[in-house]
Amino acid sequence: MSEKSLIGRIRKLAAGGSATARLGIGDDCAILRVPSGHETLTTTDFSLEGVHFRRDWHPPASVGHRCLTRGLSDIAAMGGDPIAAFLSLALPKNLAQSWVDGFLKGFLALANRFKVTLAGGDLAESPAGILADVVVIGAAPKGQAILRSGARQGDLIYVTGTLGDSAAALDLLLSGPRRKLRPGDFPAHFYPEPRIAVGRSLRRKASAMIDVSDGLSTDLTHICEESGVGAEVEASRIPRERQFGETASNHVSLDLALHGGDDYELIFTAAPETRIQSRVAGVAITQIGRIVRGKRVFLTDQSGRRVRTLEPRGWEHFKKH
Amino acid sequence: MSEKSLIGRIRKLAAGGSATARLGIGDDCAILRVPSGHETLTTTDFSLEGVHFRRDWHPPASVGHRCLTRGLSDIAAMGGDPIAAFLSLALPKNLAQSWVDGFLKGFLALANRFKVTLAGGDLAESPAGILADVVVIGAAPKGQAILRSGARQGDLIYVTGTLGDSAAALDLLLSGPRRKLRPGDFPAHFYPEPRIAVGRSLRRKASAMIDVSDGLSTDLTHICEESGVGAEVEASRIPRERQFGETASNHVSLDLALHGGDDYELIFTAAPETRIQSRVAGVAITQIGRIVRGKRVFLTDQSGRRVRTLEPRGWEHFKKH
Repeated sequence: MSEKSLIGRIRKLAAGGSATARLGIGDDCAILRVPSGHETLTTTDFSLEGVHFRRDWHPPASVGHRCLTRGLSDIAAMGGDPIAAFLSLALPKNLAQSWVDGFLKGFLALANRFKVTLAGGDLAESPAGILADVVVIGAAPKGQAILRSGARQGDLIYVTGTLGDSAAALDLLLSGPRRKLRPGDFPAHFYPEPRIAVGRSLRRKASAMIDVSDGLSTDLTHICEESGVGAEVEASRIPRERQFGETASNHVSLDLALHGGDDYELIFTAAPETRIQSRVAGVAITQIGRIVRGKRVFLTDQSGRRVRTLEPRGWEHFKKH
Repeated sequence: MSEKSLIGRIRKLAAGGSATARLGIGDDCAILRVPSGHETLTTTDFSLEGVHFRRDWHPPASVGHRCLTRGLSDIAAMGGDPIAAFLSLALPKNLAQSWVDGFLKGFLALANRFKVTLAGGDLAESPAGILADVVVIGAAPKGQAILRSGARQGDLIYVTGTLGDSAAALDLLLSGPRRKLRPGDFPAHFYPEPRIAVGRSLRRKASAMIDVSDGLSTDLTHICEESGVGAEVEASRIPRERQFGETASNHVSLDLALHGGDDYELIFTAAPETRIQSRVAGVAITQIGRIVRGKRVFLTDQSGRRVRTLEPRGWEHFKKH
C-alpha cells in the first residue's frame, strides 16, 4: 500500500473529529482547542513488534487497541481528559494491507469510545518489524493534574481493579512455543481498559497517581522516588483475579500481581481523611497500604509487620522471560 | 547505555524548562500551559536512518538538529510559536554513547535557541537502524493559524529564502560512493533553519502557508489541493543560490529548486492588496507566481505564457536517487 493511499484511508476512517480538534490530518499541524482554564497534557509511547507485541500472538486489532491504551492510560493517571491522538507508523514493506486495516480498526474503536480524534501522525517504511509511536494529548483543569510527586507520609495507597491479569495471560503465551489464546478470554491482556473515568473522578482527592504499566513494584517505587517517601504494602490486600480456567482457589500469583506489567490499572495515594469510594465508574478500588517515612517499599503481613523489601523488578516487556 | 541512564541524562540536559512547560520528563504526562486565547498546534515527524539521514554523511549533531527542524518548520508553517518538543528514540543495541550525546547536543542547541522545552519522549531498542519520532507542540492565537486551505484565485505566491540548496548538497553526497561534505559549508542541508519568525509575522497576512519539506512542486500542489485552486509559477523568479565552489554564473539547478526537498523554507499566498515586505526577520521574500482557477500548477515564462504543467514529483527522501 502506498503511503499516500494509507494516509487517505486513515483520513477517511478518522473523519468526524470533535469540537476540540478543529483541524486534523491534512495540514502542517493539527489544531486543538484545549478548554480555557485547562492545562495541556501530552504523552508519547513506542509500541514495537517483538517488544510490546508479537504478530503471532496478538491480532492486529489488539495491537491497535493496546498502542492507544498506553497513551490513554497515561492521561488517566494524571486525572485528565483525552482529546486527540497522533499515530506514527513504521511498517515493513511486505506488510499485508489487512493487517493495517485490523490495526486501525482496533485503534479507532477505542479512540471513538473515548471521543478521541485521530488528528495526525506520520508514516514510514521500517527496515525490520512494525513500530508505532502514539502521542495522546489531553487536558486537566489548571493545577488539578495529579502528579507522581504529591504522596505524603500517612497517605493511604489504593489500586483500581485487579493486578497481574495481563502478565498471567503472557505467562500462558510463553508456556509453549505455539501456544495461542483467544483474545476474548483474556481481555485484560488483549484489550486492556484505560481508567479514564476513575482517574478524572480522583482530581482533588488523590495526592499522587501513576498507571501500572511496568508493574506495581516498579510503579509504586516511581511514586516514592518522586515524592521522597517510602511505602508499606500489605501483600494479602493486593487484589488478584481468579486465574482463567483454573479452580476457584487458584488466583493470579502474587509475583505477577507485584511485578507484572501492562495492567493499566491506577495506583494512587490519598490523605487518610479523604473519602475514597470502594467502587468508582464500575471499577473496584482497594486500599493496599500506606505511605511511610524513608525511601523504601516494604511488603507487610496482615498484622502490619514488615516481611521484606519490595524491590522494583517490574515487567521489562517480553525480554525477561 | 541503559534506558534508565539515558533518561536520566536527557532529563539533566533538558532541565530548566520554560514558563509554559510546567512539568516535563518524570511523570505520566508532560503538563504544558498554552497561553489563554490560543489554540494548540501539534506536529509529529519520523526521522529514519537510511531514509532521512545517513550515519556516514551526517554528524550526530546534524541529525539531532534536522529531526527537530522538521517539527519546528511545521509550527512555522502555521504561523505558530513552538512551546515544547517530545523525542522518541529507537536505538540499535550497539550504538556508541558518543553518537547519542552528539545527537542530543544538536537537538537541544536548536531547542534552546527557540526556547522549546524537551518535555518528554520514549526510548526503545531498535532491531535495525536509528529511528527518531519528534513531536512539537506550539500555539497560535485563536483563529489565526495559517492553513493550507485558504488560497484564493488572484492571490500572489511567495517563498522565503532560496530553494534547492539542501538537495544540491545531497546531490554532491550522492555523486561518489565515499563523498563527504563539511557541514559548515552546507548549512542549508546539515543545519537547516526553521522560519519561525517569518511564519509568525505572516499571521493575518498570508492566506495559506506550507513549508517546503518535500519540494516546491509537491508542497505548492498541497496548497492547491486543499484550497481547491490552481497556480502559475514563473520559473525565472524562483530564488536559487549560487552553487558552492562553482563559478558565479552557476546556480542551483531549476530542477532541484522545483523538486528538491528538505529546504524548510515557507511557501505562502496572500491577497494582491496585502503588503508583503521583501525581507522579514533577515530572510528574503520573493514573489514567484499567483493562484489561478482550476486544479493544476503551471510553469510560465517571463511573459506569463504557460510553458508546461508542474507535476508534483518532490523529494522522496533518499530513495529516488
